[in-house]
Amino acid sequence: MRDPAVKSSSILFLLFTLSACSAKASFKPNEPCKQLVLYYHDILFNGTDVANATSAAATEPTKLGNFDFGKLVVFDDPMTKDKHLLSPPVARAQGFYFYDKKSTFTAWFAFTLIFNSTKQKGTLNIMGADLMTEETRDFSVTGGTGDFFMARGIATIRTDTFQGASYFRLKMDIKLYECY
Amino acid sequence: MRDPAVKSSSILFLLFTLSACSAKASFKPNEPCKQLVLYYHDILFNGTDVANATSAAATEPTKLGNFDFGKLVVFDDPMTKDKHLLSPPVARAQGFYFYDKKSTFTAWFAFTLIFNSTKQKGTLNIMGADLMTEETRDFSVTGGTGDFFMARGIATIRTDTFQGASYFRLKMDIKLYECY
Amino acid sequence: MRDPAVKSSSILFLLFTLSACSAKASFKPNEPCKQLVLYYHDILFNGTDVANATSAAATEPTKLGNFDFGKLVVFDDPMTKDKHLLSPPVARAQGFYFYDKKSTFTAWFAFTLIFNSTKQKGTLNIMGADLMTEETRDFSVTGGTGDFFMARGIATIRTDTFQGASYFRLKMDIKLYECY
Repeated sequence: MRDPAVKSSSILFLLFTLSACSAKASFKPNEPCKQLVLYYHDILFNGTDVANATSAAATEPTKLGNFDFGKLVVFDDPMTKDKHLLSPPVARAQGFYFYDKKSTFTAWFAFTLIFNSTKQKGTLNIMGADLMTEETRDFSVTGGTGDFFMARGIATIRTDTFQGASYFRLKMDIKLYECY
Repeated sequence: MRDPAVKSSSILFLLFTLSACSAKASFKPNEPCKQLVLYYHDILFNGTDVANATSAAATEPTKLGNFDFGKLVVFDDPMTKDKHLLSPPVARAQGFYFYDKKSTFTAWFAFTLIFNSTKQKGTLNIMGADLMTEETRDFSVTGGTGDFFMARGIATIRTDTFQGASYFRLKMDIKLYECY
Repeated sequence: MRDPAVKSSSILFLLFTLSACSAKASFKPNEPCKQLVLYYHDILFNGTDVANATSAAATEPTKLGNFDFGKLVVFDDPMTKDKHLLSPPVARAQGFYFYDKKSTFTAWFAFTLIFNSTKQKGTLNIMGADLMTEETRDFSVTGGTGDFFMARGIATIRTDTFQGASYFRLKMDIKLYECY
Protein backbone atom coordinates (compact mmCIF):
# COMPACT_ATOMS: atom_id res chain seq x y z
CA MET A 1 0.00 0.00 0.00
CA ARG A 2 2.86 2.35 0.67
CA ASP A 3 4.77 1.90 -2.53
CA PRO A 4 2.03 3.25 -4.77
CA ALA A 5 1.94 6.27 -2.50
CA VAL A 6 5.65 6.74 -2.99
CA LYS A 7 5.18 6.43 -6.73
CA SER A 8 2.38 8.93 -6.87
CA SER A 9 4.30 11.34 -4.72
CA SER A 10 7.23 10.93 -7.07
CA ILE A 11 4.99 11.80 -9.97
CA LEU A 12 3.87 14.84 -8.04
CA PHE A 13 7.51 15.78 -7.57
CA LEU A 14 8.05 15.36 -11.27
CA LEU A 15 5.15 17.60 -12.15
CA PHE A 16 6.14 20.13 -9.58
CA THR A 17 9.69 20.11 -10.82
CA LEU A 18 8.66 20.55 -14.41
CA SER A 19 6.47 23.48 -13.59
CA ALA A 20 9.25 25.04 -11.55
CA CYS A 21 11.75 24.55 -14.33
CA SER A 22 9.58 26.00 -17.04
CA ALA A 23 9.10 29.12 -14.95
CA LYS A 24 11.36 31.12 -17.26
CA ALA A 25 9.10 30.56 -20.24
CA SER A 26 5.63 30.82 -18.82
CA PHE A 27 5.56 32.37 -15.38
CA LYS A 28 5.07 36.03 -14.75
CA PRO A 29 6.80 36.84 -11.49
CA ASN A 30 4.85 38.90 -9.04
CA GLU A 31 7.79 39.92 -6.95
CA PRO A 32 11.03 41.51 -8.12
CA CYS A 33 14.25 40.02 -6.71
CA LYS A 34 15.49 43.57 -6.09
CA GLN A 35 13.83 46.99 -6.02
CA LEU A 36 15.20 50.52 -5.96
CA VAL A 37 13.33 53.82 -5.93
CA LEU A 38 15.46 56.77 -7.01
CA TYR A 39 15.01 60.33 -8.25
CA TYR A 40 16.70 61.55 -11.43
CA HIS A 41 17.55 65.27 -11.64
CA ASP A 42 18.32 66.95 -14.96
CA ILE A 43 19.55 70.55 -15.19
CA LEU A 44 19.98 71.50 -18.83
CA PHE A 45 22.97 73.71 -19.63
CA ASN A 46 21.84 77.18 -20.74
CA GLY A 47 25.23 78.22 -22.02
CA THR A 48 26.51 79.85 -18.85
CA ASP A 49 25.63 77.77 -15.74
CA VAL A 50 28.55 75.34 -15.98
CA ALA A 51 28.62 74.89 -12.21
CA ASN A 52 25.00 73.72 -11.90
CA ALA A 53 24.22 72.11 -15.24
CA THR A 54 24.19 68.30 -15.45
CA SER A 55 23.25 67.93 -19.13
CA ALA A 56 23.77 69.70 -22.43
CA ALA A 57 22.22 69.60 -25.89
CA ALA A 58 24.63 68.06 -28.39
CA THR A 59 22.42 68.84 -31.39
CA GLU A 60 20.00 71.58 -32.39
CA PRO A 61 16.33 70.70 -32.78
CA THR A 62 15.30 70.05 -36.38
CA LYS A 63 12.48 71.98 -38.05
CA LEU A 64 10.18 68.94 -38.04
CA GLY A 65 7.39 70.27 -35.84
CA ASN A 66 7.63 72.46 -32.77
CA PHE A 67 8.61 69.94 -30.13
CA ASP A 68 12.40 69.83 -30.41
CA PHE A 69 12.37 66.82 -32.74
CA GLY A 70 15.95 65.59 -33.07
CA LYS A 71 17.38 67.56 -30.14
CA LEU A 72 19.81 65.17 -28.44
CA VAL A 73 20.82 65.83 -24.83
CA VAL A 74 23.80 64.15 -23.16
CA PHE A 75 23.57 63.90 -19.36
CA ASP A 76 25.53 63.04 -16.25
CA ASP A 77 22.70 63.35 -13.76
CA PRO A 78 22.64 62.75 -10.02
CA MET A 79 20.29 60.07 -8.64
CA THR A 80 19.05 60.63 -5.10
CA LYS A 81 16.95 58.65 -2.64
CA ASP A 82 14.60 61.54 -1.96
CA LYS A 83 13.30 64.42 -4.04
CA HIS A 84 15.97 66.90 -3.05
CA LEU A 85 18.38 67.88 -5.78
CA LEU A 86 21.09 68.56 -3.24
CA SER A 87 20.79 65.28 -1.34
CA PRO A 88 23.93 63.16 -1.59
CA PRO A 89 23.63 61.20 -4.85
CA VAL A 90 23.53 57.41 -4.47
CA ALA A 91 24.25 56.92 -8.17
CA ARG A 92 24.83 58.82 -11.38
CA ALA A 93 22.86 58.40 -14.58
CA GLN A 94 25.11 58.80 -17.62
CA GLY A 95 23.63 58.65 -21.09
CA PHE A 96 21.42 60.58 -23.46
CA TYR A 97 17.89 61.33 -24.54
CA PHE A 98 16.47 62.94 -27.63
CA TYR A 99 13.05 64.30 -28.55
CA ASP A 100 11.34 62.27 -31.22
CA LYS A 101 7.80 63.39 -32.03
CA LYS A 102 6.60 66.22 -34.22
CA SER A 103 3.19 66.67 -32.59
CA THR A 104 4.04 66.56 -28.86
CA PHE A 105 6.94 66.00 -26.49
CA THR A 106 8.18 62.44 -26.32
CA ALA A 107 11.75 61.27 -25.87
CA TRP A 108 13.95 58.20 -26.11
CA PHE A 109 16.48 57.36 -23.40
CA ALA A 110 19.53 55.12 -23.10
CA PHE A 111 21.79 55.38 -20.07
CA THR A 112 23.74 53.66 -17.36
CA LEU A 113 23.12 53.99 -13.63
CA ILE A 114 26.50 53.97 -11.93
CA PHE A 115 26.65 52.99 -8.26
CA ASN A 116 29.96 53.55 -6.52
CA SER A 117 29.52 53.56 -2.75
CA THR A 118 30.62 51.28 0.05
CA LYS A 119 27.10 49.88 -0.05
CA GLN A 120 26.75 49.20 -3.76
CA LYS A 121 29.17 49.06 -6.67
CA GLY A 122 28.15 48.33 -10.22
CA THR A 123 25.98 49.50 -13.07
CA LEU A 124 22.54 49.03 -14.57
CA ASN A 125 22.02 49.60 -18.30
CA ILE A 126 18.65 50.99 -19.31
CA MET A 127 16.85 51.93 -22.54
CA GLY A 128 13.34 52.85 -23.56
CA ALA A 129 10.77 55.31 -24.82
CA ASP A 130 9.60 58.17 -22.62
CA LEU A 131 6.00 58.87 -23.64
CA MET A 132 5.70 61.96 -21.53
CA THR A 133 1.98 62.25 -21.97
CA GLU A 134 1.47 59.00 -20.03
CA GLU A 135 1.50 59.14 -16.26
CA THR A 136 4.06 56.34 -16.03
CA ARG A 137 6.38 54.87 -18.65
CA ASP A 138 8.44 51.67 -18.60
CA PHE A 139 12.06 51.36 -19.65
CA SER A 140 13.92 48.05 -19.97
CA VAL A 141 16.84 47.24 -17.71
CA THR A 142 18.84 45.27 -20.28
CA GLY A 143 21.83 44.29 -18.16
CA GLY A 144 23.89 44.94 -15.09
CA THR A 145 27.43 44.62 -13.80
CA GLY A 146 29.18 44.41 -10.42
CA ASP A 147 26.62 44.05 -7.63
CA PHE A 148 23.97 43.98 -10.36
CA PHE A 149 25.74 41.24 -12.32
CA MET A 150 23.58 40.15 -15.30
CA ALA A 151 20.43 41.78 -13.90
CA ARG A 152 17.34 42.42 -15.99
CA GLY A 153 14.13 44.22 -15.16
CA ILE A 154 11.87 47.21 -15.64
CA ALA A 155 12.41 50.86 -14.66
CA THR A 156 9.10 52.68 -14.32
CA ILE A 157 9.40 56.44 -14.54
CA ARG A 158 7.04 59.21 -13.56
CA THR A 159 7.56 62.94 -14.06
CA ASP A 160 7.90 64.33 -10.57
CA THR A 161 8.35 67.94 -11.59
CA PHE A 162 9.01 69.83 -14.79
CA GLN A 163 10.25 73.42 -14.73
CA GLY A 164 10.40 74.43 -18.36
CA ALA A 165 13.57 73.46 -20.17
CA SER A 166 15.86 74.14 -17.25
CA TYR A 167 15.05 71.43 -14.69
CA PHE A 168 13.03 68.27 -14.50
CA ARG A 169 12.91 65.42 -12.04
CA LEU A 170 11.83 61.84 -12.68
CA LYS A 171 10.87 59.28 -10.06
CA MET A 172 12.39 56.00 -11.13
CA ASP A 173 11.05 52.75 -9.68
CA ILE A 174 13.49 50.02 -10.71
CA LYS A 175 12.36 46.44 -10.34
CA LEU A 176 14.78 43.66 -11.18
CA TYR A 177 13.17 40.32 -12.07
CA GLU A 178 16.37 38.50 -12.97
CA CYS A 179 19.15 38.61 -10.38
CA TYR A 180 22.15 36.32 -10.15
CA MET B 1 12.01 -5.93 -5.18
CA ARG B 2 9.97 -2.77 -5.41
CA ASP B 3 12.21 -0.46 -3.50
CA PRO B 4 15.09 -0.63 -5.96
CA ALA B 5 12.62 0.19 -8.69
CA VAL B 6 11.50 3.23 -6.77
CA LYS B 7 15.11 4.22 -6.27
CA SER B 8 16.05 3.89 -9.91
CA SER B 9 12.97 5.79 -11.01
CA SER B 10 13.89 8.50 -8.53
CA ILE B 11 17.31 8.69 -10.09
CA LEU B 12 15.68 8.98 -13.47
CA PHE B 13 13.58 11.81 -12.14
CA LEU B 14 16.69 13.48 -10.85
CA LEU B 15 18.48 13.20 -14.20
CA PHE B 16 15.42 14.33 -16.07
CA THR B 17 15.01 17.26 -13.75
CA LEU B 18 18.61 18.31 -14.10
CA SER B 19 18.44 18.22 -17.88
CA ALA B 20 15.21 20.21 -17.83
CA CYS B 21 16.75 22.82 -15.55
CA SER B 22 19.87 23.29 -17.61
CA ALA B 23 17.77 24.05 -20.69
CA LYS B 24 18.58 27.73 -20.45
CA ALA B 25 22.29 27.14 -20.94
CA SER B 26 22.39 24.51 -23.63
CA PHE B 27 19.18 24.34 -25.61
CA LYS B 28 18.57 26.27 -28.79
CA PRO B 29 14.83 26.75 -29.10
CA ASN B 30 13.37 26.01 -32.49
CA GLU B 31 10.13 27.80 -31.89
CA PRO B 32 9.63 31.38 -30.73
CA CYS B 33 7.09 31.88 -27.94
CA LYS B 34 5.70 34.87 -29.86
CA GLN B 35 6.10 36.12 -33.42
CA LEU B 36 5.16 39.38 -35.15
CA VAL B 37 5.69 40.45 -38.73
CA LEU B 38 5.50 44.20 -39.26
CA TYR B 39 6.54 46.80 -41.81
CA TYR B 40 8.56 49.87 -40.85
CA HIS B 41 8.10 53.01 -42.94
CA ASP B 42 10.61 55.87 -42.85
CA ILE B 43 10.00 59.19 -44.62
CA LEU B 44 13.00 61.44 -44.13
CA PHE B 45 12.25 65.14 -43.61
CA ASN B 46 13.47 67.19 -46.59
CA GLY B 47 13.06 70.53 -44.86
CA THR B 48 9.55 71.29 -46.00
CA ASP B 49 7.29 68.17 -45.83
CA VAL B 50 6.42 68.45 -42.15
CA ALA B 51 3.04 66.80 -42.70
CA ASN B 52 4.42 63.60 -44.23
CA ALA B 53 7.90 63.24 -42.76
CA THR B 54 8.39 60.70 -39.95
CA SER B 55 12.13 61.18 -39.37
CA ALA B 56 14.72 63.93 -39.51
CA ALA B 57 18.51 64.14 -39.57
CA ALA B 58 19.83 65.55 -36.29
CA THR B 59 23.43 65.78 -37.52
CA GLU B 60 25.15 66.49 -40.82
CA PRO B 61 27.17 63.71 -42.44
CA THR B 62 30.91 63.92 -41.75
CA LYS B 63 33.48 64.07 -44.53
CA LEU B 64 34.69 60.53 -43.81
CA GLY B 65 33.84 58.88 -47.12
CA ASN B 66 30.80 59.40 -49.32
CA PHE B 67 28.19 57.33 -47.50
CA ASP B 68 26.81 59.75 -44.93
CA PHE B 69 29.15 58.52 -42.17
CA GLY B 70 27.98 60.07 -38.90
CA LYS B 71 24.58 61.25 -40.14
CA LEU B 72 22.18 60.54 -37.28
CA VAL B 73 18.46 60.30 -37.98
CA VAL B 74 15.78 60.43 -35.27
CA PHE B 75 12.51 58.73 -36.19
CA ASP B 76 8.93 58.24 -35.08
CA ASP B 77 7.91 55.74 -37.73
CA PRO B 78 4.61 53.93 -38.25
CA MET B 79 4.60 50.11 -38.16
CA THR B 80 1.93 48.42 -40.24
CA LYS B 81 0.80 44.84 -40.74
CA ASP B 82 0.99 45.06 -44.52
CA LYS B 83 3.20 46.98 -46.93
CA HIS B 84 0.94 50.00 -47.27
CA LEU B 85 2.26 53.19 -45.77
CA LEU B 86 -1.23 54.44 -45.14
CA SER B 87 -2.57 51.32 -43.42
CA PRO B 88 -3.52 51.97 -39.80
CA PRO B 89 -0.32 51.62 -37.77
CA VAL B 90 -0.33 48.82 -35.17
CA ALA B 91 2.72 50.29 -33.45
CA ARG B 92 5.19 53.14 -33.66
CA ALA B 93 8.95 52.78 -33.83
CA GLN B 94 10.67 55.59 -31.92
CA GLY B 95 14.44 55.81 -31.91
CA PHE B 96 17.38 56.60 -34.15
CA TYR B 97 19.83 55.28 -36.68
CA PHE B 98 23.10 56.61 -37.99
CA TYR B 99 25.29 55.71 -40.96
CA ASP B 100 28.60 54.21 -39.92
CA LYS B 101 30.77 53.03 -42.80
CA LYS B 102 33.04 55.03 -45.09
CA SER B 103 33.02 52.55 -47.99
CA THR B 104 29.32 51.65 -48.29
CA PHE B 105 25.96 52.25 -46.62
CA THR B 106 25.56 50.53 -43.27
CA ALA B 107 23.70 51.84 -40.25
CA TRP B 108 23.19 51.21 -36.55
CA PHE B 109 19.71 51.25 -34.99
CA ALA B 110 18.30 51.54 -31.49
CA PHE B 111 14.59 52.04 -30.95
CA THR B 112 11.43 51.12 -29.13
CA LEU B 113 8.34 49.59 -30.68
CA ILE B 114 5.34 51.09 -28.93
CA PHE B 115 2.05 49.16 -29.03
CA ASN B 116 -0.97 50.99 -27.77
CA SER B 117 -4.18 49.36 -28.96
CA THR B 118 -6.97 47.50 -27.29
CA LYS B 119 -5.25 44.32 -28.51
CA GLN B 120 -1.71 44.99 -27.31
CA LYS B 121 -0.16 47.49 -24.95
CA GLY B 122 3.52 47.65 -24.19
CA THR B 123 6.94 48.12 -25.73
CA LEU B 124 9.82 46.17 -27.23
CA ASN B 125 13.34 47.60 -27.05
CA ILE B 126 15.61 46.78 -29.96
CA MET B 127 19.21 47.46 -31.01
CA GLY B 128 21.60 46.24 -33.68
CA ALA B 129 23.65 46.75 -36.81
CA ASP B 130 21.95 47.16 -40.18
CA LEU B 131 24.39 45.75 -42.74
CA MET B 132 22.36 46.89 -45.71
CA THR B 133 24.37 44.87 -48.20
CA GLU B 134 23.09 41.63 -46.63
CA GLU B 135 19.66 40.36 -47.65
CA THR B 136 18.58 39.99 -44.01
CA ARG B 137 20.04 41.41 -40.81
CA ASP B 138 19.35 40.52 -37.19
CA PHE B 139 18.74 42.98 -34.37
CA SER B 140 18.48 42.03 -30.69
CA VAL B 141 15.24 42.50 -28.80
CA THR B 142 16.83 43.35 -25.46
CA GLY B 143 13.72 43.79 -23.35
CA GLY B 144 10.03 44.43 -23.25
CA THR B 145 7.35 45.97 -21.08
CA GLY B 146 3.57 45.70 -20.64
CA ASP B 147 2.21 42.81 -22.71
CA PHE B 148 5.82 42.08 -23.68
CA PHE B 149 7.03 42.06 -20.07
CA MET B 150 10.72 41.03 -19.92
CA ALA B 151 10.70 39.64 -23.47
CA ARG B 152 13.88 38.89 -25.40
CA GLY B 153 14.39 37.78 -28.97
CA ILE B 154 15.57 38.57 -32.46
CA ALA B 155 14.16 41.03 -35.02
CA THR B 156 15.15 40.06 -38.55
CA ILE B 157 14.92 42.89 -41.03
CA ARG B 158 14.83 42.93 -44.81
CA THR B 159 14.79 45.99 -47.05
CA ASP B 160 11.40 45.88 -48.71
CA THR B 161 11.84 49.00 -50.80
CA PHE B 162 14.28 51.88 -50.96
CA GLN B 163 13.41 55.08 -52.80
CA GLY B 164 16.53 57.21 -52.53
CA ALA B 165 16.84 59.22 -49.35
CA SER B 166 13.18 60.08 -49.10
CA TYR B 167 11.44 56.77 -48.27
CA PHE B 168 12.39 53.25 -47.31
CA ARG B 169 10.48 50.32 -45.92
CA LEU B 170 11.78 47.44 -43.87
CA LYS B 171 10.04 44.13 -43.27
CA MET B 172 10.60 43.24 -39.64
CA ASP B 173 10.13 39.65 -38.50
CA ILE B 174 10.20 39.69 -34.70
CA LYS B 175 10.65 36.39 -32.90
CA LEU B 176 10.56 36.35 -29.13
CA TYR B 177 12.31 33.37 -27.51
CA GLU B 178 11.88 34.49 -23.92
CA CYS B 179 8.34 35.36 -22.85
CA TYR B 180 7.00 35.62 -19.34
CA MET C 1 11.94 0.84 7.68
CA ARG C 2 12.77 1.36 4.05
CA ASP C 3 9.83 3.48 3.10
CA PRO C 4 10.75 6.40 5.33
CA ALA C 5 14.18 6.29 3.73
CA VAL C 6 12.60 6.54 0.30
CA LYS C 7 10.50 9.41 1.52
CA SER C 8 13.41 11.30 2.94
CA SER C 9 15.45 10.76 -0.19
CA SER C 10 12.52 12.03 -2.20
CA ILE C 11 12.45 15.12 -0.08
CA LEU C 12 16.15 15.52 -0.71
CA PHE C 13 15.47 15.26 -4.43
CA LEU C 14 12.81 17.87 -4.10
CA LEU C 15 15.11 20.25 -2.27
CA PHE C 16 17.91 19.58 -4.70
CA THR C 17 15.60 20.12 -7.62
CA LEU C 18 14.28 23.35 -6.26
CA SER C 19 17.75 24.71 -5.70
CA ALA C 20 18.78 23.66 -9.21
CA CYS C 21 15.71 25.26 -10.72
CA SER C 22 16.11 28.52 -8.90
CA ALA C 23 19.68 28.77 -10.23
CA LYS C 24 18.67 31.59 -12.53
CA ALA C 25 17.54 33.71 -9.63
CA SER C 26 20.22 33.09 -7.04
CA PHE C 27 23.33 31.51 -8.49
CA LYS C 28 26.30 33.52 -9.68
CA PRO C 29 28.04 31.49 -12.34
CA ASN C 30 31.79 31.21 -11.98
CA GLU C 31 32.47 30.15 -15.50
CA PRO C 32 31.31 31.85 -18.69
CA CYS C 33 29.88 29.56 -21.38
CA LYS C 34 31.96 31.44 -23.95
CA GLN C 35 34.90 33.86 -23.73
CA LEU C 36 36.58 36.12 -26.27
CA VAL C 37 39.49 38.50 -25.82
CA LEU C 38 39.75 41.13 -28.53
CA TYR C 39 41.39 44.50 -29.13
CA TYR C 40 39.40 47.51 -30.30
CA HIS C 41 41.24 50.14 -32.37
CA ASP C 42 39.85 53.64 -32.85
CA ILE C 43 41.45 56.16 -35.22
CA LEU C 44 39.52 59.44 -35.04
CA PHE C 45 39.10 61.29 -38.34
CA ASN C 46 41.08 64.55 -38.32
CA GLY C 47 39.43 65.95 -41.42
CA THR C 48 41.96 64.65 -43.95
CA ASP C 49 43.02 61.04 -43.17
CA VAL C 50 40.06 59.31 -44.83
CA ALA C 51 42.16 56.26 -45.69
CA ASN C 52 43.19 55.51 -42.09
CA ALA C 53 40.37 56.91 -39.96
CA THR C 54 37.83 54.47 -38.50
CA SER C 55 35.65 56.94 -36.60
CA ALA C 56 34.42 60.51 -36.89
CA ALA C 57 32.82 63.08 -34.60
CA ALA C 58 29.20 63.67 -35.59
CA THR C 59 28.73 66.56 -33.13
CA GLU C 60 30.87 69.34 -31.74
CA PRO C 61 31.65 69.32 -28.01
CA THR C 62 29.39 71.56 -25.96
CA LYS C 63 30.76 74.31 -23.72
CA LEU C 64 29.85 72.41 -20.56
CA GLY C 65 33.32 71.96 -19.08
CA ASN C 66 36.58 71.19 -20.88
CA PHE C 67 36.24 67.47 -21.47
CA ASP C 68 34.35 67.30 -24.76
CA PHE C 69 30.95 66.93 -23.06
CA GLY C 70 28.41 66.05 -25.73
CA LYS C 71 30.91 65.16 -28.46
CA LEU C 72 29.45 62.11 -30.20
CA VAL C 73 31.71 59.85 -32.24
CA VAL C 74 30.44 57.25 -34.72
CA PHE C 75 32.81 54.35 -35.36
CA ASP C 76 33.40 51.34 -37.58
CA ASP C 77 36.43 49.96 -35.77
CA PRO C 78 38.48 46.83 -36.42
CA MET C 79 38.70 44.19 -33.68
CA THR C 80 41.86 42.10 -33.65
CA LYS C 81 43.08 39.12 -31.65
CA ASP C 82 46.37 40.78 -30.76
CA LYS C 83 47.41 44.36 -30.14
CA HIS C 84 48.47 45.13 -33.68
CA LEU C 85 46.30 47.59 -35.54
CA LEU C 86 47.17 45.99 -38.84
CA SER C 87 46.44 42.39 -37.83
CA PRO C 88 43.56 40.91 -39.82
CA PRO C 89 40.36 41.95 -38.03
CA VAL C 90 38.26 39.10 -36.63
CA ALA C 91 35.28 41.39 -36.19
CA ARG C 92 34.17 44.99 -36.61
CA ALA C 93 32.71 47.17 -33.90
CA GLN C 94 30.03 49.48 -35.31
CA GLY C 95 28.36 52.01 -33.06
CA PHE C 96 29.03 55.22 -31.19
CA TYR C 97 30.34 56.80 -28.03
CA PHE C 98 29.99 60.25 -26.57
CA TYR C 99 31.75 62.12 -23.79
CA ASP C 100 29.49 62.81 -20.84
CA LYS C 101 31.22 64.44 -17.88
CA LYS C 102 32.14 68.06 -17.30
CA SER C 103 34.96 67.43 -14.80
CA THR C 104 36.90 64.58 -16.45
CA PHE C 105 36.80 62.25 -19.45
CA THR C 106 34.12 59.60 -19.28
CA ALA C 107 32.12 58.20 -22.17
CA TRP C 108 29.08 56.11 -22.96
CA PHE C 109 29.17 53.36 -25.60
CA ALA C 110 26.63 51.38 -27.59
CA PHE C 111 27.74 49.18 -30.46
CA THR C 112 27.55 45.88 -32.26
CA LEU C 113 30.40 43.45 -32.74
CA ILE C 114 30.01 41.94 -36.20
CA PHE C 115 31.69 38.59 -36.87
CA ASN C 116 31.71 37.44 -40.48
CA SER C 117 34.32 34.76 -41.03
CA THR C 118 34.19 31.08 -41.87
CA LYS C 119 34.78 30.46 -38.17
CA GLN C 120 32.11 32.73 -36.69
CA LYS C 121 29.10 34.56 -38.09
CA GLY C 122 26.82 36.70 -36.02
CA THR C 123 26.69 39.76 -33.80
CA LEU C 124 26.92 40.80 -30.16
CA ASN C 125 25.11 43.93 -28.98
CA ILE C 126 26.81 45.88 -26.22
CA MET C 127 26.14 49.00 -24.14
CA GLY C 128 27.58 50.65 -21.06
CA ALA C 129 29.45 53.45 -19.35
CA ASP C 130 33.18 53.89 -19.90
CA LEU C 131 34.53 55.39 -16.68
CA MET C 132 37.99 55.98 -18.08
CA THR C 133 39.50 56.80 -14.72
CA GLU C 134 38.88 53.21 -13.57
CA GLU C 135 41.39 50.56 -14.58
CA THR C 136 38.66 48.28 -15.90
CA ARG C 137 35.03 48.99 -16.80
CA ASP C 138 32.16 46.62 -17.48
CA PHE C 139 29.70 46.89 -20.36
CA SER C 140 26.58 44.72 -20.74
CA VAL C 141 26.26 42.29 -23.63
CA THR C 142 22.51 42.66 -24.05
CA GLY C 143 21.93 40.22 -26.89
CA GLY C 144 23.41 38.27 -29.75
CA THR C 145 22.50 36.85 -33.13
CA GLY C 146 23.76 34.09 -35.46
CA ASP C 147 26.45 32.02 -33.72
CA PHE C 148 25.80 34.18 -30.64
CA PHE C 149 22.03 33.61 -30.74
CA MET C 150 20.39 35.17 -27.67
CA ALA C 151 23.69 35.52 -25.80
CA ARG C 152 24.10 37.72 -22.73
CA GLY C 153 27.16 38.59 -20.70
CA ILE C 154 29.72 41.17 -19.67
CA ALA C 155 32.43 42.88 -21.72
CA THR C 156 35.23 44.14 -19.50
CA ILE C 157 37.35 46.84 -21.11
CA ARG C 158 40.77 48.20 -20.24
CA THR C 159 42.57 51.08 -21.95
CA ASP C 160 45.53 49.46 -23.62
CA THR C 161 46.98 52.63 -25.10
CA PHE C 162 45.83 56.20 -25.59
CA GLN C 163 47.62 58.51 -28.02
CA GLY C 164 45.85 61.83 -27.63
CA ALA C 165 42.70 62.26 -29.68
CA SER C 166 44.01 60.42 -32.71
CA TYR C 167 44.28 56.76 -31.63
CA PHE C 168 43.27 54.61 -28.70
CA ARG C 169 43.10 50.89 -28.16
CA LEU C 170 40.90 48.99 -25.72
CA LYS C 171 41.38 45.43 -24.57
CA MET C 172 37.94 43.83 -24.47
CA ASP C 173 37.40 40.67 -22.43
CA ILE C 174 33.96 39.37 -23.36
CA LYS C 175 32.43 36.73 -21.13
CA LEU C 176 29.07 35.26 -22.08
CA TYR C 177 27.11 33.74 -19.21
CA GLU C 178 23.98 32.91 -21.18
CA CYS C 179 24.50 30.87 -24.35
CA TYR C 180 21.89 28.93 -26.25
